Amino acid sequence: MCPAAKISFGSDYMEGAHPAILKRLADENFTQFAGYGTDTASEAARNKIRAACQAPEADVYFLVGGTQVNSTIISALLKSYQGVLAAETGHINTHESGAVEASGHRVMALPQREGKLSAQTIRAALEAYDNDAKKDHCVMPGMVYISHPTESGTLYSLAELEAISAVCRAHKVPLYVDGARMSYALASSANDVTLPDLARLCDVFYIGGTKCGALFGEAVVIPKHGLIPHFFSIIKQRGALLAKGFVAGLEFDTLFTDGLYASIGRTAVEAADRIRAALEEAGYPQAYPTHANQIFPVMTREQIQRISEEAELGHWEDLPDGRSIMRITTSWATKESSVDRLIALLKEA
Amino acid sequence: MCPAAKISFGSDYMEGAHPAILKRLADENFTQFAGYGTDTASEAARNKIRAACQAPEADVYFLVGGTQVNSTIISALLKSYQGVLAAETGHINTHESGAVEASGHRVMALPQREGKLSAQTIRAALEAYDNDAKKDHCVMPGMVYISHPTESGTLYSLAELEAISAVCRAHKVPLYVDGARMSYALASSANDVTLPDLARLCDVFYIGGTKCGALFGEAVVIPKHGLIPHFFSIIKQRGALLAKGFVAGLEFDTLFTDGLYASIGRTAVEAADRIRAALEEAGYPQAYPTHANQIFPVMTREQIQRISEEAELGHWEDLPDGRSIMRITTSWATKESSVDRLIALLKEA
Amino acid sequence: MCPAAKISFGSDYMEGAHPAILKRLADENFTQFAGYGTDTASEAARNKIRAACQAPEADVYFLVGGTQVNSTIISALLKSYQGVLAAETGHINTHESGAVEASGHRVMALPQREGKLSAQTIRAALEAYDNDAKKDHCVMPGMVYISHPTESGTLYSLAELEAISAVCRAHKVPLYVDGARMSYALASSANDVTLPDLARLCDVFYIGGTKCGALFGEAVVIPKHGLIPHFFSIIKQRGALLAKGFVAGLEFDTLFTDGLYASIGRTAVEAADRIRAALEEAGYPQAYPTHANQIFPVMTREQIQRISEEAELGHWEDLPDGRSIMRITTSWATKESSVDRLIALLKEA
Amino acid sequence: MCPAAKISFGSDYMEGAHPAILKRLADENFTQFAGYGTDTASEAARNKIRAACQAPEADVYFLVGGTQVNSTIISALLKSYQGVLAAETGHINTHESGAVEASGHRVMALPQREGKLSAQTIRAALEAYDNDAKKDHCVMPGMVYISHPTESGTLYSLAELEAISAVCRAHKVPLYVDGARMSYALASSANDVTLPDLARLCDVFYIGGTKCGALFGEAVVIPKHGLIPHFFSIIKQRGALLAKGFVAGLEFDTLFTDGLYASIGRTAVEAADRIRAALEEAGYPQAYPTHANQIFPVMTREQIQRISEEAELGHWEDLPDGRSIMRITTSWATKESSVDRLIALLKEA
Repeated sequence: MCPAAKISFGSDYMEGAHPAILKRLADENFTQFAGYGTDTASEAARNKIRAACQAPEADVYFLVGGTQVNSTIISALLKSYQGVLAAETGHINTHESGAVEASGHRVMALPQREGKLSAQTIRAALEAYDNDAKKDHCVMPGMVYISHPTESGTLYSLAELEAISAVCRAHKVPLYVDGARMSYALASSANDVTLPDLARLCDVFYIGGTKCGALFGEAVVIPKHGLIPHFFSIIKQRGALLAKGFVAGLEFDTLFTDGLYASIGRTAVEAADRIRAALEEAGYPQAYPTHANQIFPVMTREQIQRISEEAELGHWEDLPDGRSIMRITTSWATKESSVDRLIALLKEA
Repeated sequence: MCPAAKISFGSDYMEGAHPAILKRLADENFTQFAGYGTDTASEAARNKIRAACQAPEADVYFLVGGTQVNSTIISALLKSYQGVLAAETGHINTHESGAVEASGHRVMALPQREGKLSAQTIRAALEAYDNDAKKDHCVMPGMVYISHPTESGTLYSLAELEAISAVCRAHKVPLYVDGARMSYALASSANDVTLPDLARLCDVFYIGGTKCGALFGEAVVIPKHGLIPHFFSIIKQRGALLAKGFVAGLEFDTLFTDGLYASIGRTAVEAADRIRAALEEAGYPQAYPTHANQIFPVMTREQIQRISEEAELGHWEDLPDGRSIMRITTSWATKESSVDRLIALLKEA
Repeated sequence: MCPAAKISFGSDYMEGAHPAILKRLADENFTQFAGYGTDTASEAARNKIRAACQAPEADVYFLVGGTQVNSTIISALLKSYQGVLAAETGHINTHESGAVEASGHRVMALPQREGKLSAQTIRAALEAYDNDAKKDHCVMPGMVYISHPTESGTLYSLAELEAISAVCRAHKVPLYVDGARMSYALASSANDVTLPDLARLCDVFYIGGTKCGALFGEAVVIPKHGLIPHFFSIIKQRGALLAKGFVAGLEFDTLFTDGLYASIGRTAVEAADRIRAALEEAGYPQAYPTHANQIFPVMTREQIQRISEEAELGHWEDLPDGRSIMRITTSWATKESSVDRLIALLKEA
Repeated sequence: MCPAAKISFGSDYMEGAHPAILKRLADENFTQFAGYGTDTASEAARNKIRAACQAPEADVYFLVGGTQVNSTIISALLKSYQGVLAAETGHINTHESGAVEASGHRVMALPQREGKLSAQTIRAALEAYDNDAKKDHCVMPGMVYISHPTESGTLYSLAELEAISAVCRAHKVPLYVDGARMSYALASSANDVTLPDLARLCDVFYIGGTKCGALFGEAVVIPKHGLIPHFFSIIKQRGALLAKGFVAGLEFDTLFTDGLYASIGRTAVEAADRIRAALEEAGYPQAYPTHANQIFPVMTREQIQRISEEAELGHWEDLPDGRSIMRITTSWATKESSVDRLIALLKEA
């Protein structure tokens, strides 16, 4: 195997796991654990997550990946005649190969700003349904999906999240937050949304592991115990139940020991902050006002070509004027030397 | 975390991973890999599996777990009006929480013997449909599912598998083999079915990782390239696509280096052979003629109680006479000292 | 169009509609009705059905056909991880092309006697699930499906139905009765189950129209108002909502005017009684003790051949000894002269 | 039953059936027909439709209603990972309660003009998918859905349909036309699309019965024989197979005898033309340039209130300025006197 010599800022799922996790897996490698998440490691992890969320009654489940969590949660929360409200840029509406529809439900895409839905947009959609004389012939909005951080690298403020939560509760529609990159929100100085806030304001959310230092795994948190009855069987039925659930348990137990999850995103966000400053200084426009580990600079073809010789960036979207929005992603594993090199490249290009 | 002091023969998914896999993950931990299985490690693993199966054109995919593989493959192979023929003891018919039905298809359970379907039983079912005047109102059998080793710990002989394959091909019905415990078949002296045999006789099969030394992961092999078009999107849609596909790639690349997969089951089968001999000597009846890593002794309540004080066994089925069929499972991680202790317990009880 | 000169006892859906229905449709042909069952005719029909069932609060909906009703009701009542208990001879398990599975649920087939499930069989299945240590990995029985009359032409006694209902209620599992041929049960002297009994003992049942004198249509009765929220949208989503719902409304309003539905089956049952007596007299064995409009005589090939020259019978099942179980079905439209002719044929053959 | 004394232009499914159909049903009421559409009347109707479409090899099936046809055809044509391209105003995207998604597929809504998709819009959507580097993570457009006449009362020209068909064929994507109101297109002087054109240019289309003079029923035409294998079982599985298929057969046999279907829409279109002229003369704006049996005048609240005292119109959409788009629908059953009265009301209001 010969990995590319190039440094890559292509995504935040390119490296293995935080060394503390690998060490933990090695230490416990021959311990015998019970199956399917009924083990002691998973229980310890669940308790630490409950504590971190100040949600002592919460149901916590460990699943493998984001699309799986999204489609499992959404199909578990919705009635057959309901759909899920989401930003048109939301992951479930763009890059999940129709997983939500495959489980029988419409993704009801709404206009967004910087990757975010506003409380007003959601309220308008809920009221439009309520006031539609033909609503029984329409898809009923049955829940709201948002991402924090969003797919555009932006963050909801606590005030925005509270407003959305209030609209959802007024309309008795559950609020679900996709936290695939949660650690990078928590590590951002611009963020004022804590895990206890999420537990207080959402009906279900998940704390990302795959992109945040685990080999794989996402922790689903359902603050109100019993909200989804028989969720174990639902997970099993959807092929999302790990026989060796203890592996995810050991990972999350490690992530929630000594505040690792709260700190693991710092390297990434500091790296991203440095890159943002360099982009600004070098005069690159940015498509969205990002504050976590994703950055969306606008670049000319020449710039892209030059930089790509030495560093891999993500390609996001072509603009009509020939330029492109690119995506630079940092992670818990990003090295300072790689950032230095990228910044040098940006300045030169 | 305080793991049970008791030794456990409860299942083959209680320990972590083969040390060579852990070492490999640690060695490559900061290598940057591409996402979604498009990485170099996955490609290397695919090539080694193709070689081991003597199937150079095969499509190979890495998924996470057994139920997920089963429901993804089955729904990808069947038309909407078709069902899957399976032994009534088959995993998809018993312990997958209705995952096949959730994807829209009937599990058409057939009578079995020692966990195995016979070619005759399959042919009879296919002909019964063909000859039914009302067949257009019935579920059409659209594929055959078998497990090797079976859920009852037994093995298909090559002759049996060839007969089944011949029936399937005569009726143009794909044959799918669930190989969750494949390494334990390959390590059994009673087994005469090789990976190249499976590649030659089946349309799809999977080589189990979760129960055979990996942290997680199953390798789906489709000998005929392109049999399932757009399978990548199907996997994604079903929430079965790993963002960090390279982790599974590294695991299977390790398992298929230096013949590890072929040998990894030996410890388990040798342990099981010793236990089988001890059971026979001590006069315990066995429910099925097992040859791989599962054993199904019939025990009295008193025997179960005494043994369970020191060793955990699986409970399989209660018999009308008050006795129970228990399940003893060994794995690649089973220690000789544990086997010694279990044998002593069996003799005393 | 040249209809067969042969008389046919092949099924009870071979003729159009009771003349009173045709007259009603013609009389109201240019009346303008509101759409989707919100019309005055449907409302009148619903009220008459509520009265006939002594269920003033009942929700009543008109759908088109039996398979549609079954799969719509079953998928509306079940959670994703649940299946439906049914006799292995139940229509949903045999001749609905997998419609229940297509909606995501297992048909959990149980042993039957003369087409009927017993309360004991149901209780045993429910308790087996409750007592299964691995039940979270299994399909949960979520409702019970029975037919009255059954697919074997037999009838549940009121005592049997009460026992089944009691088991269902003790286990909080809804009971659903498929009444595709309900008018023929109501017209049978052997029947002691009334519509008010059904409304009292079941959670959902349907009163068949297609086989009982309507051009098409089945009346779904849900005795407890609101049991299935948003059922209108569910019906629409499943393609089962009639734009011209008033046609079904006019049909059922006619069937429930002046006791037509209670009497419409009499011709059929009297005809069937005469045929049963003739069969007995002529020494034909009967496969099941039928009391409504279906009869299952056992015939030799020669008998079948001779009779089939002049009368069409249904073919049910071949017996190992070369004989066959045939099905003779009468209907509201069966003519006395046809019965005379069939009886003569039976005697001669 | 006391039908509203008001005249109604609320929809085209308010009256029963063309008298010729009622007469035919009465004439054949006691003829015995085979079940499930295998009867002689259905076969005769199929042959007449094949002739009218100049498609002698076509598969023709009779289903009950529009949503049912749409979701059955769409799910039969699409692979699991595909969606259907449709105008955002298309019926499947607005008023079918998520029936397409319930069968597992996304409705991929595209911008429209006057209810119509253009070949360019479709091509752009297909090319956008083809050129998307992440397309394997996206829903693949797998077919195109259009309506003729559209939900906005407009008509595709033959040139437009040919352009769309050419794009679909170039991309190997089937084209499906929802013809719920087909008779009103055929009767419009502005229409130049014939049934043979549809058979030549589409892969599947349906000829509406429910809104075009039948009690119920839609004729699905698949010009290329065998395009959808086992479609009978698919129909059955979706609860869309009529036991008394002969009723639909008799209806369509009548509609396609002596050119009835070609002429049945004339009354409606002539009435609509008179109303359109009156609206223009009276100065009402119209939202879309309609040419069949639907008209969408823009009215003030006062106008709506006055007219609604004597005539029922459909309500389509509220405009920001307080006015509303209303819908006036005529049908085969619209009386000249009702049109006179409506025109008088329009002039006064």
